[in-house]
Amino acid sequence: MEFISIIMGSKSDWNVMSECVEVFKKFDCLYEVIISSAHRSPERTKEYVKDASSRGACVFIAAAGMAAHLAGAVAAQTSKPVIGVPLDSSPLNGLDALLSTVQMPSSMPVATMAIGKAGAINAAYFAMQILSLKNEELAGKLIEDRVIKSKKVELDSREIEVRIK
Amino acid sequence: MEFISIIMGSKSDWNVMSECVEVFKKFDCLYEVIISSAHRSPERTKEYVKDASSRGACVFIAAAGMAAHLAGAVAAQTSKPVIGVPLDSSPLNGLDALLSTVQMPSSMPVATMAIGKAGAINAAYFAMQILSLKNEELAGKLIEDRVIKSKKVELDSREIEVRIK
Amino acid sequence: MEFISIIMGSKSDWNVMSECVEVFKKFDCLYEVIISSAHRSPERTKEYVKDASSRGACVFIAAAGMAAHLAGAVAAQTSKPVIGVPLDSSPLNGLDALLSTVQMPSSMPVATMAIGKAGAINAAYFAMQILSLKNEELAGKLIEDRVIKSKKVELDSREIEVRIK
Amino acid sequence: MEFISIIMGSKSDWNVMSECVEVFKKFDCLYEVIISSAHRSPERTKEYVKDASSRGACVFIAAAGMAAHLAGAVAAQTSKPVIGVPLDSSPLNGLDALLSTVQMPSSMPVATMAIGKAGAINAAYFAMQILSLKNEELAGKLIEDRVIKSKKVELDSREIEVRIK
Amino acid sequence: MEFISIIMGSKSDWNVMSECVEVFKKFDCLYEVIISSAHRSPERTKEYVKDASSRGACVFIAAAGMAAHLAGAVAAQTSKPVIGVPLDSSPLNGLDALLSTVQMPSSMPVATMAIGKAGAINAAYFAMQILSLKNEELAGKLIEDRVIKSKKVELDSREIEVRIK
Amino acid sequence: MEFISIIMGSKSDWNVMSECVEVFKKFDCLYEVIISSAHRSPERTKEYVKDASSRGACVFIAAAGMAAHLAGAVAAQTSKPVIGVPLDSSPLNGLDALLSTVQMPSSMPVATMAIGKAGAINAAYFAMQILSLKNEELAGKLIEDRVIKSKKVELDSREIEVRIK
Amino acid sequence: MEFISIIMGSKSDWNVMSECVEVFKKFDCLYEVIISSAHRSPERTKEYVKDASSRGACVFIAAAGMAAHLAGAVAAQTSKPVIGVPLDSSPLNGLDALLSTVQMPSSMPVATMAIGKAGAINAAYFAMQILSLKNEELAGKLIEDRVIKSKKVELDSREIEVRIK
Amino acid sequence: MEFISIIMGSKSDWNVMSECVEVFKKFDCLYEVIISSAHRSPERTKEYVKDASSRGACVFIAAAGMAAHLAGAVAAQTSKPVIGVPLDSSPLNGLDALLSTVQMPSSMPVATMAIGKAGAINAAYFAMQILSLKNEELAGKLIEDRVIKSKKVELDSREIEVRIK
Repeated sequence: MEFISIIMGSKSDWNVMSECVEVFKKFDCLYEVIISSAHRSPERTKEYVKDASSRGACVFIAAAGMAAHLAGAVAAQTSKPVIGVPLDSSPLNGLDALLSTVQMPSSMPVATMAIGKAGAINAAYFAMQILSLKNEELAGKLIEDRVIKSKKVELDSREIEVRIK
Repeated sequence: MEFISIIMGSKSDWNVMSECVEVFKKFDCLYEVIISSAHRSPERTKEYVKDASSRGACVFIAAAGMAAHLAGAVAAQTSKPVIGVPLDSSPLNGLDALLSTVQMPSSMPVATMAIGKAGAINAAYFAMQILSLKNEELAGKLIEDRVIKSKKVELDSREIEVRIK
Repeated sequence: MEFISIIMGSKSDWNVMSECVEVFKKFDCLYEVIISSAHRSPERTKEYVKDASSRGACVFIAAAGMAAHLAGAVAAQTSKPVIGVPLDSSPLNGLDALLSTVQMPSSMPVATMAIGKAGAINAAYFAMQILSLKNEELAGKLIEDRVIKSKKVELDSREIEVRIK
Repeated sequence: MEFISIIMGSKSDWNVMSECVEVFKKFDCLYEVIISSAHRSPERTKEYVKDASSRGACVFIAAAGMAAHLAGAVAAQTSKPVIGVPLDSSPLNGLDALLSTVQMPSSMPVATMAIGKAGAINAAYFAMQILSLKNEELAGKLIEDRVIKSKKVELDSREIEVRIK
Repeated sequence: MEFISIIMGSKSDWNVMSECVEVFKKFDCLYEVIISSAHRSPERTKEYVKDASSRGACVFIAAAGMAAHLAGAVAAQTSKPVIGVPLDSSPLNGLDALLSTVQMPSSMPVATMAIGKAGAINAAYFAMQILSLKNEELAGKLIEDRVIKSKKVELDSREIEVRIK
Repeated sequence: MEFISIIMGSKSDWNVMSECVEVFKKFDCLYEVIISSAHRSPERTKEYVKDASSRGACVFIAAAGMAAHLAGAVAAQTSKPVIGVPLDSSPLNGLDALLSTVQMPSSMPVATMAIGKAGAINAAYFAMQILSLKNEELAGKLIEDRVIKSKKVELDSREIEVRIK
Repeated sequence: MEFISIIMGSKSDWNVMSECVEVFKKFDCLYEVIISSAHRSPERTKEYVKDASSRGACVFIAAAGMAAHLAGAVAAQTSKPVIGVPLDSSPLNGLDALLSTVQMPSSMPVATMAIGKAGAINAAYFAMQILSLKNEELAGKLIEDRVIKSKKVELDSREIEVRIK
Repeated sequence: MEFISIIMGSKSDWNVMSECVEVFKKFDCLYEVIISSAHRSPERTKEYVKDASSRGACVFIAAAGMAAHLAGAVAAQTSKPVIGVPLDSSPLNGLDALLSTVQMPSSMPVATMAIGKAGAINAAYFAMQILSLKNEELAGKLIEDRVIKSKKVELDSREIEVRIK
């Protein structure tokens, strides 16, 4: 059974990453969530990635702040797609986490999303875009979601719109 | 027939993006390459994405420098996975392209890679990681590549290695 | 009938962009305001720009945060002047929006203003400076406004001024 | 007779700003070019702006590097539209000039372009977009230019294009 | 009669610059304070600098935020020493004001202080250091102040000090 | 008797550096804490370093914000290891303190930690890692601490963990 | 037998890290050098750290560029002191490597040195400062080196010195 | 006899700082030049400042790169005015030196100039502006220099000037 695996570096990341989970709930996607640190629990991280991978994890989402190595550490253990979410958890506004996540060396990609909440939500969407390549139902839901989002723009606009007649 | 689509914003990006193509050649992956600009040829970009998508493009790679909108413009036209490669083509060393590519708003992900050549190569690897979810042969090649890369580290090391006996 | 068109990427931008509208109200300028996203509603954005342009929009003001592509997306659809207002809506303090707006490639200008509220107000002033090239009344009002602003500096100064006699 | 005025802060800026002039030559636009510094020749700058304005200058382009005050100094002397081109002439890659040009306070806009050569070219385009609001011939040329630029993208693409048949 | 002149770009700068004034009060130094903007009141700024200079102003302190041109504009009107205080009044945390103040071109120095309150206080100290070159009493006070500050460090330390006996 | 010496540039740094002290208390390590400034009390700093060094200080921890010279000033007086903690005490979010601490010239190292609280805690850990090279008991405690931290990750995880069965 | 272990992420880092080795040669310090990547050879890195640690490695120096995870990955496997050298090997001038190395989370310190060559040399000095805590001969050499460096300053000075007589 | 003292942190700074000396030569100003490091020769720096101060040094110019502490170290030893020149001698383009020089804490000002050559020249000009407060001849020369610089702008302009007749 295929699922998406979400790994966070610390409990304090849950506040942001719960947004990611909400998206999966809304789209009825199978996911796992665990906390495991690249530095504090490297063995756990490695073993979890190996195990989850063998149990059906097909995409990994890794979220961390500061010198955010988690996504890279996951990528080092699997050649499944790894999505990185840089978090804003130091005085540097997440620039540290962004550069630590995105500037991966050749042949070791981490698909990096925006810093913080927008990135947490986009990680979920991107994971579903990958899954929908072989899941037509999900592909349909994503297209439908776009239509809704696009209509939402129109509805939002009406509240403040001023048009010259 | 499934393939990967590579779009560049300008001819000058070819110098870097040819690295991406080399990876696909090496792994025998089907790819398309075109130049199309988010700003100079928005219709062409849009129509290409629609057309390629209908012809079997399952992952898009978009590379651009400066205010790099290309990946976002592609993402706006498809819910297939879009990979962004920020290029270093202004005095700001690619920081402009990185932020323009990665800081996408909620529900509109672009999977952002490192700036420049490393990013071009990683875009290819990441696209193949996605494809390999339903292509076991490719998955095998990627695992094999990792073994080779890992051995290469050892070989490189031997050239300079100093060990205490 | 000529007017200025203001486009925002999302409802949350209204908080800042209402400052822009206040300036137009004060100067009795015709304006339109809509919400349309470069990514969530690209067709709507494109069609609106074409339509507004044909109905008399002579200057466009586009405001967005994060990977702020909206002004560039508008510029791609019209050769009317496009003014970009980068908004501070991510942890990066608007630096992402600034670079995404200002670093446009050759022959595709976006006239970029300061980040946030000052930029929203300045977008209105700059649009009026353009209009006043063929509207002497407005040109007069702008000159008058400068005199008032300059006097305001003197009045403000008096409240704290200390002079050696 | 209406014309565009280009002001540079120093002789060394000519290397970049000659690109701006080339665009005006190509489009047969009337322009003036002078060197005048915000700091070294403030009176000259002020008097030139007043004089040029009275002689028909309808748009000013000001280019400077480092603590680039020139565009702001011009804007302080006229309520005609002022376009700023930040130049890359210090170790900070033009970030100093960009922020010094774009972060103008409320009611004192400077329409800021990209750093360096792209900005120099875009300043010319943006000035022409303003002029074309009351010059249909120029408006036509700009639209034509876009068609050519867009076709150029296609031609460039053909040189490297790879399509799946 | 010699005095120090303090110029602020806007009323909102008073909150920080009052710290500068407090230092002069404490050291019994003659000072003037006015508000004058480089952009909103360029004539006032210029005339004030000329006038103050003729009346005995021997050092100028100019404080501004954003594209902080005020210190440069003052420096352009006098060859008396000009001290610049970059203020933190935009989303960019004062980095814009710092670069706009410090990156002055050759032969046009602005003596730049730290961003914000520390800079406001240091501007006062630096101005007094200049004055004390020909005012032995003030020189003495500054040396005394250092002794007090140094002792204050010891006193502060005692509150938390832990020493191994 | 060997101990670790903690020096802070100002009383306001205590808020963060007390975290460093808490770690030493927990691990029963001998430490000294004083306030001494690189600039306000250079003699005190120098003499303290010489004296503490002769009394048994084997590692120095120096914490400062802004143009954080304290760690460098300590390093200039001793060839004992110096650990620097950059503090976030200016509008620039500690980037100023980080660069002022880490970018030391050849042969004058300062072992730089993360900005702020994480850095304060890590300074304590790093000092203990040095001490534990000749203190097996402490080495044991550090290893034990890692086991606890690693288990804490698991416990934290359980609170939010979602696993596919 | 105690020694210092130097680990580089890639062969291209040798160019800079050979400077580090030169220092150890000059001071007759025992060292090992290997190449091992945090991402390409995570097992090798882990096993090497465990093995070297058991064979007497008492300090680790890890050098890497881009999203420089190597020092953190080493720190995760040992509670011996780990020194990180951020390398300048991407368009971002080493800022990516600096932040990826220094911004480590609580209780997982990496002692970060300057970017590039200065950092490579300082890593060697810092490692020797640690070793010299229990090696009086080395401590003596370091003090002697300081005297030489200090004299070198005087000699260098003489070449250009101008003194008022 | 009054003079200006120039201190550089290393021999490699001479390349830039010789520009500063050229200005003093041109204006016939008395100056001293020495190399002394804040870190490598702290005693020498301190003693030199004390000695030079007693011999007539009335302004100090301190130039350094990287974690540029030299100006701050000089300021800590004298209450004479200290001018800091941040140099571009690391991969970070002088941003490290700028922040290390300018972000001085309260009551310890360093008058910071632009990064590199422009800053070296401006340090000389600023020192002369201070001296000219009690040296009318020098004050006259500085005013004359401004006239020449201003005329130079006009002459430079003529080489490229294009005017509408």
